[in-house]
Amino acid sequence: MASKNLLLLAGDGIGPEAMAEVKKLIAAMNAKLGSGFATDEGLVGGCAYDAHGAAISDADMEKAMAADAVLFGAVGGPKWDKVPYEVRPEAGLLRLRKDMELFANLRPAICYPALAASSSLKQEVVEGLDILIVRELTGGVYFGEPKQIIDLGNGQKRGIDTQVYDTFEIERISGVAFELARTRKNHVTSMEKRNVMKSGVLWNEVVTQTHKAKYADVKLDHMLADAGGMQLVRWPKQFDVIVTDNLFGDMLSDIAAMLTGSIGMLPSASLGAPDVKTKKRKALYEPVHGSAPDIAGQGIANPIAMIASFAMCLRYSFGMVAEADKLEGAIAAVLDQGLRTKDIMSEGMSEVGTVEMGDAIITKF
Amino acid sequence: MASKNLLLLAGDGIGPEAMAEVKKLIAAMNAKLGSGFATDEGLVGGCAYDAHGAAISDADMEKAMAADAVLFGAVGGPKWDKVPYEVRPEAGLLRLRKDMELFANLRPAICYPALAASSSLKQEVVEGLDILIVRELTGGVYFGEPKQIIDLGNGQKRGIDTQVYDTFEIERISGVAFELARTRKNHVTSMEKRNVMKSGVLWNEVVTQTHKAKYADVKLDHMLADAGGMQLVRWPKQFDVIVTDNLFGDMLSDIAAMLTGSIGMLPSASLGAPDVKTKKRKALYEPVHGSAPDIAGQGIANPIAMIASFAMCLRYSFGMVAEADKLEGAIAAVLDQGLRTKDIMSEGMSEVGTVEMGDAIITKF
Ligand SMILES: CC(C)[C@H](C(=O)O)[C@@H](O)C(=O)O
Ligand SMILES: CC(C)[C@H](C(=O)O)[C@@H](O)C(=O)O
Repeated sequence: MASKNLLLLAGDGIGPEAMAEVKKLIAAMNAKLGSGFATDEGLVGGCAYDAHGAAISDADMEKAMAADAVLFGAVGGPKWDKVPYEVRPEAGLLRLRKDMELFANLRPAICYPALAASSSLKQEVVEGLDILIVRELTGGVYFGEPKQIIDLGNGQKRGIDTQVYDTFEIERISGVAFELARTRKNHVTSMEKRNVMKSGVLWNEVVTQTHKAKYADVKLDHMLADAGGMQLVRWPKQFDVIVTDNLFGDMLSDIAAMLTGSIGMLPSASLGAPDVKTKKRKALYEPVHGSAPDIAGQGIANPIAMIASFAMCLRYSFGMVAEADKLEGAIAAVLDQGLRTKDIMSEGMSEVGTVEMGDAIITKF
Repeated sequence: MASKNLLLLAGDGIGPEAMAEVKKLIAAMNAKLGSGFATDEGLVGGCAYDAHGAAISDADMEKAMAADAVLFGAVGGPKWDKVPYEVRPEAGLLRLRKDMELFANLRPAICYPALAASSSLKQEVVEGLDILIVRELTGGVYFGEPKQIIDLGNGQKRGIDTQVYDTFEIERISGVAFELARTRKNHVTSMEKRNVMKSGVLWNEVVTQTHKAKYADVKLDHMLADAGGMQLVRWPKQFDVIVTDNLFGDMLSDIAAMLTGSIGMLPSASLGAPDVKTKKRKALYEPVHGSAPDIAGQGIANPIAMIASFAMCLRYSFGMVAEADKLEGAIAAVLDQGLRTKDIMSEGMSEVGTVEMGDAIITKF
């Protein structure tokens, strides 16, 4: 049997509470289904900084590199707002993405039927929404050099970041988007700002070429990223798969998530390239929501995004498609049953805490 | 009497149709109120490229530099999709912004009561919305160097753009935001990605210092730009003035505009620094919508954003506050009366064309 080594990096804020529910789930799967997961744990973010002055230690990085998949909670909080830039909590996440070469970030924006009414958008605009944002995750302005603040004297400083994309990076991320589109509605929309950015010109060119060479069966549209943001708000159902760069993907995926009214519910997967020999991809799974320090430790956090991230892990890292479907079904079932954590509570529903929500999903699973 | 020289750059697509309504309005103001506007015209965008191979000619640039204010329509269309990057239609607009040093882009996102129901957001989320996005317009990734595509050989290219901000640029744009906040709800939210970008770190630092030194009476919040985008969708009324950089401002202002359901209605002003001697600011006024080539020439375009841009011109360039108020009142009045162009048409209203809408507003004025 192939190994199933999971590294759990719960992080800060509500990360540990949410992760605790996934741990229970893993234990249940091992006990009842003999799923054979082995888990290890490490520190990332503010808690890692407190423990050893870095947002992730080299030892934990090594564990992440060796694991079959990493489950990641959330990082950051006001406690670490003043720590030096290089060791801020987010640096741990960024190092994981970069060192593991997790170039493909998959962010489904799904509107759970039970929650359609809780969106700030009209119900008919979001009901049944199911789009997938494929965000490039190891390039662009996040990592380009120079990235620095220069002291110019006379009280003047200069802040510089560099947006860089190479052909191969655009090729591989658009390949992922086209492949995934084939399993969905077969429609990709590529977004950039080619009218202002040279990287956008190249992005547009390479996506077009990749499409022509290998994926001509998929419908491809191009949209300027600002217009794309508008269209997401106006009529999101026009999209199936959106492929875009690191920074636009950050903005657009958060907006798409918020449209659904289900931000506490949305998972993500960050994948590397398949290994030439083993075909295995390095992978990290993470809820879209942040560390929510304001509600941490109160037992009220919504664990669904973290659990749904584990469902993506089952699907993409271990090919356990039936189990992933079943787990996603269990989430939908407890929602249909009327269970709600505080963030998604509405009239007539039953408010439950983190642990009860986790238990209910495990029971349905 | 101070001079009132206007340069009209109608541009492409629906630009000329919308501008024609403003021309009628100016003629009426001159005839009935003796407003004393002198107008000249020039070419920008695709039509300028067709006429002389550049997105704006040096002669027209000179006119723009000399004018008291520039009224700008819209640029671009499929006809010019393949022209070289340097002379693409947008290059004309970008040159105007850069050469005139129009660093402050003011984009009000107002939800006209008569149109609240036409937003894709729930009526209670957008009704009464009145926020102002103050976007930095002459810096950042739009203009930073290097900006180029390098051929790396082996079929590989590299696209590079550079995000650069200096202290003084952040200082002056945040000054504009704080000043404007004082005339409104006295609340500024600054948005950047300081957790990923060094320019964001500097942005945050300089806005904080400027606030402390000169505007401590204004309420200041900081938000990460991705979270800001989410909050705009979730509950936009939490904002008063948002100050942000060129690229985030492009995305966020388009999203804010779309929230209102009134995208065909929204104006913008781009202002330079006050001249040391004359105190006059260079200025360009422009609708937020684009050139909409699909409906150009049909007489159905909504001229309201262009007319509302002229109202901003009256207010900011000529201190004609009473006239600006009156013109904005006339726009609201024709909407209350039930007149609608096609883009904002809804049941029970009267659909009118561009010319009728313009005439109705001029009559009410
Ligand atoms: C935490 C932060 C560095 C991160 C990002 O900007 O990528 C987050 O916003 C995300 O989208 O995963
Ligand atoms: C036309 C384009 C260059 C421009 C921009 O990106 O600034 C437009 O989107 C805008 O917001 O005014």
